[in-house]
Amino acid sequence: MVKPSIPKGTRDFGPAVVRKRNYILQTIRGVFEVFGFQPLETPAMENLTTLNGKYGEEGDKLIFKILDNGDILGRAQQAKDSRELGVLLCEKALKYDLTIPFARYVVMNQHEITFPFKRYQIQPVWRGDRPAKGRYREFYQCDADVVGSNSLMNEVELLKIYDTVFTKLGMHGYQLRVNNRKILGGLAELVGKPELITDITISIDKLDKIGEDGVTKELLERGLNEADVKVILDFIAIKGSNNEILEQLKEVLKQSATGLKGVEELSTVLNTQLTSFNSTPIIDLTLARGLNYYTGMIIEVKAPETVKMGSIGGGGRYDDLTGLFGLPGVSGVGISFGVDRIYDVLEELQLFPATAQQSTKVMFIHTGEENLATAFNHMMNLREQGIAAEIYHENAKMDKQFKYADKRGIPYVAIVGDSEKAEGNVSVKNLVTGQQEKVAAADLASFQF
Amino acid sequence: MVKPSIPKGTRDFGPAVVRKRNYILQTIRGVFEVFGFQPLETPAMENLTTLNGKYGEEGDKLIFKILDNGDILGRAQQAKDSRELGVLLCEKALKYDLTIPFARYVVMNQHEITFPFKRYQIQPVWRGDRPAKGRYREFYQCDADVVGSNSLMNEVELLKIYDTVFTKLGMHGYQLRVNNRKILGGLAELVGKPELITDITISIDKLDKIGEDGVTKELLERGLNEADVKVILDFIAIKGSNNEILEQLKEVLKQSATGLKGVEELSTVLNTQLTSFNSTPIIDLTLARGLNYYTGMIIEVKAPETVKMGSIGGGGRYDDLTGLFGLPGVSGVGISFGVDRIYDVLEELQLFPATAQQSTKVMFIHTGEENLATAFNHMMNLREQGIAAEIYHENAKMDKQFKYADKRGIPYVAIVGDSEKAEGNVSVKNLVTGQQEKVAAADLASFQF
Repeated sequence: MVKPSIPKGTRDFGPAVVRKRNYILQTIRGVFEVFGFQPLETPAMENLTTLNGKYGEEGDKLIFKILDNGDILGRAQQAKDSRELGVLLCEKALKYDLTIPFARYVVMNQHEITFPFKRYQIQPVWRGDRPAKGRYREFYQCDADVVGSNSLMNEVELLKIYDTVFTKLGMHGYQLRVNNRKILGGLAELVGKPELITDITISIDKLDKIGEDGVTKELLERGLNEADVKVILDFIAIKGSNNEILEQLKEVLKQSATGLKGVEELSTVLNTQLTSFNSTPIIDLTLARGLNYYTGMIIEVKAPETVKMGSIGGGGRYDDLTGLFGLPGVSGVGISFGVDRIYDVLEELQLFPATAQQSTKVMFIHTGEENLATAFNHMMNLREQGIAAEIYHENAKMDKQFKYADKRGIPYVAIVGDSEKAEGNVSVKNLVTGQQEKVAAADLASFQF
Repeated sequence: MVKPSIPKGTRDFGPAVVRKRNYILQTIRGVFEVFGFQPLETPAMENLTTLNGKYGEEGDKLIFKILDNGDILGRAQQAKDSRELGVLLCEKALKYDLTIPFARYVVMNQHEITFPFKRYQIQPVWRGDRPAKGRYREFYQCDADVVGSNSLMNEVELLKIYDTVFTKLGMHGYQLRVNNRKILGGLAELVGKPELITDITISIDKLDKIGEDGVTKELLERGLNEADVKVILDFIAIKGSNNEILEQLKEVLKQSATGLKGVEELSTVLNTQLTSFNSTPIIDLTLARGLNYYTGMIIEVKAPETVKMGSIGGGGRYDDLTGLFGLPGVSGVGISFGVDRIYDVLEELQLFPATAQQSTKVMFIHTGEENLATAFNHMMNLREQGIAAEIYHENAKMDKQFKYADKRGIPYVAIVGDSEKAEGNVSVKNLVTGQQEKVAAADLASFQF
């Protein structure tokens, strides 16, 4: 018999981990809900035609395809290469992100949806990446998007969602960073090479990692000359408060209508009178994030610097997502939470509250058949009050039963022996402090377990 | 451009459906939790070797296999038939149920798990069945199991979970039916053909659908003679209260040690002094449910007769599930909820509460930039109180904004115009009754939205 295992890059989540993950997801979900976002769930399987070609050549290779059932041998024999084989044998594939299925859903249901449509979606996605620390083949994405509205109030609301969630999670020191795709477009115009915007932004996005020298080297390799590089390095060196940066940008980008539009959008969002932030968003001119996709504001959340985790969320405005499926002209803006990384940050900073780690509050000792019905009855009363309670499954030695409760992390043990039964009491022992007390059965439900 | 679609047998769940599904799942999850069950999540993808051979020949064909990435053309050319092709090209597959992955998990983590292990699991599974009404290729299963305990108290607890959940869902008229595999074994001994137990039980399990004549015909076709059939029909005709049936069974099965053991187990569970049931479990001697799997008690929940839905849940005791992966001798007992069918029953009987269908409670009208910050501030205060609130995204005509709230099913609209702002009030309009009132801004959070 083969020793059982799971596919590499996938994970089992045992009880303790599920509880902590749920704490994160419930916190996010709760904030999405009070902000008026609505839940959507799409299937794990999409038609391969829906996904293929949407994630670039590299992305296409990482899509997990599902083998058609039935007689497929004949089809397999027609394939000339492995890529073609996949297309011939597989109609379906596992979803690669939540964004493309969302766009597909919006287009399919455009006549039923009331726009603006504010939806959130928390589901697993699958990617055939090489597994590594923090990189899985099956992982959750957690997205909120608004489609069908150009209003910059949406940008403010989404920043406020980030601010609210990370405040609720107690993650002091998170940073909200913002930029605008149009400002990056303005920079490319400034250099006089708008066609190289992708090369420019891919390079400057790495400033944190490779430093100024690295960026210079990469820009030169990507076809920019030394004069261009100087313009770019001067640009990303612009420093100051948000408004000081915005003022300098207005001057530097004065020849670029696109650039000035970006400055105006950013200024509107950052100077909003609608609300304030616990962590004020900061302009980061190197921020790009999958630029080809975004058309307006770009957002990224950085974990507190002490944990060296980098980005724990990001998003931005995109102007033509549903156009991929034949519905042009629907603007959207969205954000995403990196659940696995948030988990690691909370773990490292020990920010999971005790309530996110507890399940059963009290275990009743099985003291023998005579007292079992009484104990069971007390237990059911607790359960009816919403208090998670159990009774040991058999009349084992006291010691064994206590050990079980302890291993399970159950904080209280309740005993109904002959004397307790006669007196109408329950003995309650706190397994952490070792303290034991008698509680009248009638008061058990109001005991602070 | 191809019109977008989703694979047949899969579904998108829009906001209203997600909310109602979540109401069901939260109800079940809440009961699992207070009964001391712990959450487990396993990956969607399992190794194909973990699943193959576990669901019979027919089941194997319905497993969705995931095409390996990389260079697979050479492997494809070695296949002699479609079945072999699947095995050669696919290391991984989508899980087919929650039970086999659970057994795999228990074996892999046997040294860390504290037994008895009470786990629940609510996740999607995938089957390549032909899609039909109520039959999907991607659907949720919702299971609770106890492994590592022989105590019949577990059977009582699981029956009580069913009783509690369906009571909470307000589904009057559900029936809990029980049987015992050992009693069916006793019947096969009684006939003198213990090797035909599967044939006998598959046939009598259909009594509801095909009647006595149909069962007779099928039994004869399956190699039983007329005398056998008479014994079997007499057996399943045993009627009366639970205890009357148990008494008759004791007499009929007096030669069968196995049969009598089954009667004793059933008697212990049904005559428990530990608790009582809102819907008392009823003995159903024709109940078998995937018999090869079960070794003790068998449970099924039937929907109220008025809705003609049949089974909405089922389970039983199995003695050697983890033996499949090399860990013999771990007894288990579990139940499962048929979430899709429960959804349909609640829909048909109109049992979804209003709270399961509501999202945003109040939408603020966008009355222009001058009053926007005030309205936004009121909205944020409501959100901080956990009340889902929105503001219309742009300064459109009043009529358009009201229509949006109405289409979205938002019950209240709040207006902060010049006069409200000056007076420190908010006008709140109930869109259902049409009633409008002024509420002091300070009292807004305590307003009954």
